Amino acid sequence: MPEKKKLALIVEGGTLDKLYCAFILGSTATSMGWEAHLYFTFWGLTALIKGGMEKAGLPSDYKQMEKPMRENLKRMNYPTPYEMLKRMKTSGLLKIYACTPSMEMFSVKKEDLIPEVDEMVGAATFLNIAAGADVCLFI
Amino acid sequence: MPEKKKLALIVEGGTLDKLYCAFILGSTATSMGWEAHLYFTFWGLTALIKGGMEKAGLPSDYKQMEKPMRENLKRMNYPTPYEMLKRMKTSGLLKIYACTPSMEMFSVKKEDLIPEVDEMVGAATFLNIAAGADVCLFI
Amino acid sequence: MPEKKKLALIVEGGTLDKLYCAFILGSTATSMGWEAHLYFTFWGLTALIKGGMEKAGLPSDYKQMEKPMRENLKRMNYPTPYEMLKRMKTSGLLKIYACTPSMEMFSVKKEDLIPEVDEMVGAATFLNIAAGADVCLFI
Repeated sequence: MPEKKKLALIVEGGTLDKLYCAFILGSTATSMGWEAHLYFTFWGLTALIKGGMEKAGLPSDYKQMEKPMRENLKRMNYPTPYEMLKRMKTSGLLKIYACTPSMEMFSVKKEDLIPEVDEMVGAATFLNIAAGADVCLFI
Repeated sequence: MPEKKKLALIVEGGTLDKLYCAFILGSTATSMGWEAHLYFTFWGLTALIKGGMEKAGLPSDYKQMEKPMRENLKRMNYPTPYEMLKRMKTSGLLKIYACTPSMEMFSVKKEDLIPEVDEMVGAATFLNIAAGADVCLFI
Repeated sequence: MPEKKKLALIVEGGTLDKLYCAFILGSTATSMGWEAHLYFTFWGLTALIKGGMEKAGLPSDYKQMEKPMRENLKRMNYPTPYEMLKRMKTSGLLKIYACTPSMEMFSVKKEDLIPEVDEMVGAATFLNIAAGADVCLFI
């Protein structure tokens, strides 16, 4: 059997636009049968804290777009970022990594993170995954 | 004849710095005979709305740099982002994609977009292009 | 001897979070024996100006995180971005490129830059390096 295609994302942003970009790419990849490896660092890492994704909004430069965007998402019955993450998980093709240096920098403990996190690792682990990926992006 | 090299960019940012990054990379690639595939999503998508690129400025954290930067660009006779896009088009090597989920989120219709847009597609189309690219970046 | 693996980064951001992302990835790569090619453009370029990295802070949307982050970094004895850059240099595997169009846009001269810069080049040079890289990211 041929190896699966692989998407590797470093999710550095924690705003609603960046989370949707990461999760739309991730969902699309897993629905195509690709593996998706998402490594959360900096503001992305803080979005993995329990309740963190629910607090994510648009960057202040785009704040005026948040209300119409949320209304459109509701009308489209679009899933929230956390719902997207949980759906992707059911594919068995998604792996979520939390960046350990970011956890130290922001005093985040393992028990603070949502249970969907698979591994807490440093950049070396991710670079090896990224080197074997078909598409690799920093979001 | 060997296949052309390929640049694939996801243009998520819509500020002047991000547009210039995307278009300088795109122009350079096409001038080297590479194909350039630019997929515009979120704030990048809003820059594809007619008149949108002309309104793009620097992010508020760098607002004080906008005046000297614009003066230098003028002195250098540097093309505007839209002029760069139109020049790249003449190479026959540039393809512009508008992200359909972003269009829905921001209530953007086909007729709102500049005529240089080649296709309106979702992330699956782009991931397949990106998987065959020599350089792939998220801007 | 097999060719070394290669990391290629376009460093567009100049804030503390983006510089740490770039330098943590760069340090990890060089410590694994990879080559690291870092091309600084826009706000990343301004961080290469003498004294520029010392002035870098967090983006205004995350300003309230700067004090606790700096305290944690101090407690961890974490190196500053410039210290990281200088340590990476000793590996002999790091190359620093300054983007010449960005230098023109912001009236930056060669003598304004830190001495660790290896080359001042345009996007064509970088695209050729990126096309041969194992991991390529835009930060």
